[in-house]
Amino acid sequence: MKKSRLILSLLLAFASTLASAQSENPPPVKEDFKPSVLNQPGKEYPQVNSQGYVRFRIEAPDAQKVHVSLGLGGRGGTALTKGADGIWEGTTEGPLDEGFHYYHLNVDGGTFNDPGTLNFYGSVRWESGIEIPAADQDIYALKDVPHGKVEQILFPSKSTQTSRRAFVYTPPGYGKDRSKKYPVLYLQHGWGEDETAWSNQGHANLIMDNLIAAGKTQPFLIVMTYGMTNEVKFGQLSSFDITPFQTVLLDELIPYVDANYLTQADPAHRAMAGLSMGGMETRTITLANPGVFSYVGLLSGGSISMEDLEKSPDFKKNVKLLFVSYGSRELDNPRRGPWGDPKENTAAVTAAGLKTHFYVSPNTAHEFQSWRRSLYVMAPMLFK
Amino acid sequence: MKKSRLILSLLLAFASTLASAQSENPPPVKEDFKPSVLNQPGKEYPQVNSQGYVRFRIEAPDAQKVHVSLGLGGRGGTALTKGADGIWEGTTEGPLDEGFHYYHLNVDGGTFNDPGTLNFYGSVRWESGIEIPAADQDIYALKDVPHGKVEQILFPSKSTQTSRRAFVYTPPGYGKDRSKKYPVLYLQHGWGEDETAWSNQGHANLIMDNLIAAGKTQPFLIVMTYGMTNEVKFGQLSSFDITPFQTVLLDELIPYVDANYLTQADPAHRAMAGLSMGGMETRTITLANPGVFSYVGLLSGGSISMEDLEKSPDFKKNVKLLFVSYGSRELDNPRRGPWGDPKENTAAVTAAGLKTHFYVSPNTAHEFQSWRRSLYVMAPMLFK
Repeated sequence: MKKSRLILSLLLAFASTLASAQSENPPPVKEDFKPSVLNQPGKEYPQVNSQGYVRFRIEAPDAQKVHVSLGLGGRGGTALTKGADGIWEGTTEGPLDEGFHYYHLNVDGGTFNDPGTLNFYGSVRWESGIEIPAADQDIYALKDVPHGKVEQILFPSKSTQTSRRAFVYTPPGYGKDRSKKYPVLYLQHGWGEDETAWSNQGHANLIMDNLIAAGKTQPFLIVMTYGMTNEVKFGQLSSFDITPFQTVLLDELIPYVDANYLTQADPAHRAMAGLSMGGMETRTITLANPGVFSYVGLLSGGSISMEDLEKSPDFKKNVKLLFVSYGSRELDNPRRGPWGDPKENTAAVTAAGLKTHFYVSPNTAHEFQSWRRSLYVMAPMLFK
Repeated sequence: MKKSRLILSLLLAFASTLASAQSENPPPVKEDFKPSVLNQPGKEYPQVNSQGYVRFRIEAPDAQKVHVSLGLGGRGGTALTKGADGIWEGTTEGPLDEGFHYYHLNVDGGTFNDPGTLNFYGSVRWESGIEIPAADQDIYALKDVPHGKVEQILFPSKSTQTSRRAFVYTPPGYGKDRSKKYPVLYLQHGWGEDETAWSNQGHANLIMDNLIAAGKTQPFLIVMTYGMTNEVKFGQLSSFDITPFQTVLLDELIPYVDANYLTQADPAHRAMAGLSMGGMETRTITLANPGVFSYVGLLSGGSISMEDLEKSPDFKKNVKLLFVSYGSRELDNPRRGPWGDPKENTAAVTAAGLKTHFYVSPNTAHEFQSWRRSLYVMAPMLFK
């Protein structure tokens, strides 16, 4: 397990390249700010302008200092200034990357959420979230198309002696014809997130609804559960061990889903993918259990090397597609991830006969916009 | 609509009797505090002791003042004191009622959530939540029984020109036999809450799972959607109008559910209930549309008077059960709700031939413990 610990530490170091790598001379700020789409009902702030700048307003008239964790990379976030009305206000020093960003406030030395925004589970806490409208936001927009469901299930888990929660995306019309069976993608969140991330932050359900409505993918189920089964706490990463989660996934969740959903319950119709730590889990579990999944997706979560294929010869035999993706800003980073250069690794295993697809999300970092796009690109390639 | 405005104002005044009406001389505090079950993963505070006292600890070393909104009624919450370690700490002046309570912090004049707890939508914002373990918590405990699902659906709404969200509880085994059809309860949240309340705060799914496992109720579907369709903002209650929600419910949601779920799609197998403002909505809609629902539940949301029956003669003809409930502390309150004394009203309509059940939740106020218990008592009486 020592290798896993090292790898996870590297992934997390990698994850610190956030939101960020913008130019040193940001453009002048346009005064066309609008409330973020992730604000709580009726809340005017935070606001985002057409360039991707964010303006915060926080009421705390007697505070000494209010600081926002979100800002340009390496510059320590955004300091707010108290106005005559007692409201703290500030604008990011430059535009942020398109898509979703986590953040929080520091008020007089304490960590709090922005009362203006919805909360999203990340960094092992419910964080504030903000959305910079993306040029390609259409792929996860709520449109007037048939919508699938996101079903919360509680499945029995003997290994952890409780009922565990998972969410299951079922496509429009699922279940009306009980003779129609569906393939299944098991899709994992990243470190510090949970089973809510792929639908809340990732809009996985809307991405699927839109792809299906456009005839771009066949319908399939997506199963999302909690991947930090050993209850890793912040600052206790060294305790990470894949075994508890692997047991829940392979011995408990998959049998439950196959028994309770209309699935094509065979390896040819089963995929696993994950982002960041979820990619590491996907990589570890699919290499160690090469007969279980036929499609593998590593989203900002490493790659498969020739050494991996040599150690797990059945992987190449069984896997019909290895999908590897990164945000472009991650690949720009000199710390290229724990398993060597992912593009070179993927080229090597492709040359060795593994079918692969390598995708780079333009101008995004180790954040959800990279993973929304990755799902959008990957989904049509699965179960062919 | 003027009457509705008045009624809603009264309901909200009524709602201010929270958590609270305890004795003037609280017992000495026992030092057996444990983390609240609603804390975020790994968070040690807030804590609850065996008597129902709550202890808060908030890190904000440079703050001037930290105050918690939760405390004994009418005493203005709980003031925290800064310790030598820079942590603000305080304990409620007395034990709180059993069950779920909303709260928030005031830090240097600003409203923030406690970073230790999960968030729950109430008061038109995501609030902190705490749970005082109840003697009867078994009724909504997560047990090793077959579990139903809570399905998020997005249904088309022409009247509001969008896809709207609802949650549908489906009982264990739902859908396996497509010839088996189910009755449906439409269940509404209160003012300032949303469609997440009945499963998050109310544990409606676990209450049903446990009742079904014990053979105490027949299985049925519960549909929960957003009842403040006119987007009422805090401080703008005077704009409340039932029409937009009634249109969504009767003309859009019910037809969608009947078309997409295995329902017994007739009035004899359709119930409507709601808490507080949701009770007011239930009352208004079922009186105005007496042929649509056969079971009506008003949970801390008023009652049906003889005058109502005279104005809507078909109500008595069609309704097979009127369920009316309150928390005992609400009935102790001299402001007995907007429609006269609910117990007297219910006795009068019972004498006039309407089948009713009047339930009082012991030692609870206008809060979720009253409504969890009400659902537990009401469910077995429906669809008989």
